[in-house]
Amino acid sequence: MITVNVLYPNKEGAKFDMNYYLTSHIPMLKRVLGSALKGCVVEQGLGGTAPATRAEFSVLCHLRFDSVESYQSAHGPHAAEIRNDVAKYSSEAPIIQFSDVKLA
Amino acid sequence: MITVNVLYPNKEGAKFDMNYYLTSHIPMLKRVLGSALKGCVVEQGLGGTAPATRAEFSVLCHLRFDSVESYQSAHGPHAAEIRNDVAKYSSEAPIIQFSDVKLA
Repeated sequence: MITVNVLYPNKEGAKFDMNYYLTSHIPMLKRVLGSALKGCVVEQGLGGTAPATRAEFSVLCHLRFDSVESYQSAHGPHAAEIRNDVAKYSSEAPIIQFSDVKLA
Repeated sequence: MITVNVLYPNKEGAKFDMNYYLTSHIPMLKRVLGSALKGCVVEQGLGGTAPATRAEFSVLCHLRFDSVESYQSAHGPHAAEIRNDVAKYSSEAPIIQFSDVKLA
């Protein structure tokens, strides 16, 4: 099992529309990725663990797939649609990486 | 429900002992945090989603608690023990933040 981690930097002045993200972007992702998507977690940064420090990321999204190939097959045909939706809710481009799930 | 996201930067030359982490550090965390810990996910960075790019983080750990206060009560008495163990498996200090779970 792998995760696609999508991390939105919490820069000074960064804007993120969580309502649009949860009610439009994520439902679209689920629709186009279909049964290849095995899980979806969305987290909103609250702050650093040290007092009065900022969260490094405003939003973290973790998408589970059986494999990198499974993600690529499901995501490829819809890559442009997904990418072009980002500007509707985020002023910042996300950091995206593949991770191997070691413990869940 | 909140998550404590612990993110280890994948810097050039960074070292991370996943075997020690999974067989010693995580079991210690579970023991000292007890029933306050509601979930624990460990992911190992594989690479960026663009071809031939590095993963931004070598390891991501997501720890679930009922609330920030629940984490602080459980973690506080063991903070030094947990912090002092990090050098045994990682050359890099992690980025740590609190996040609110919006979708799980």
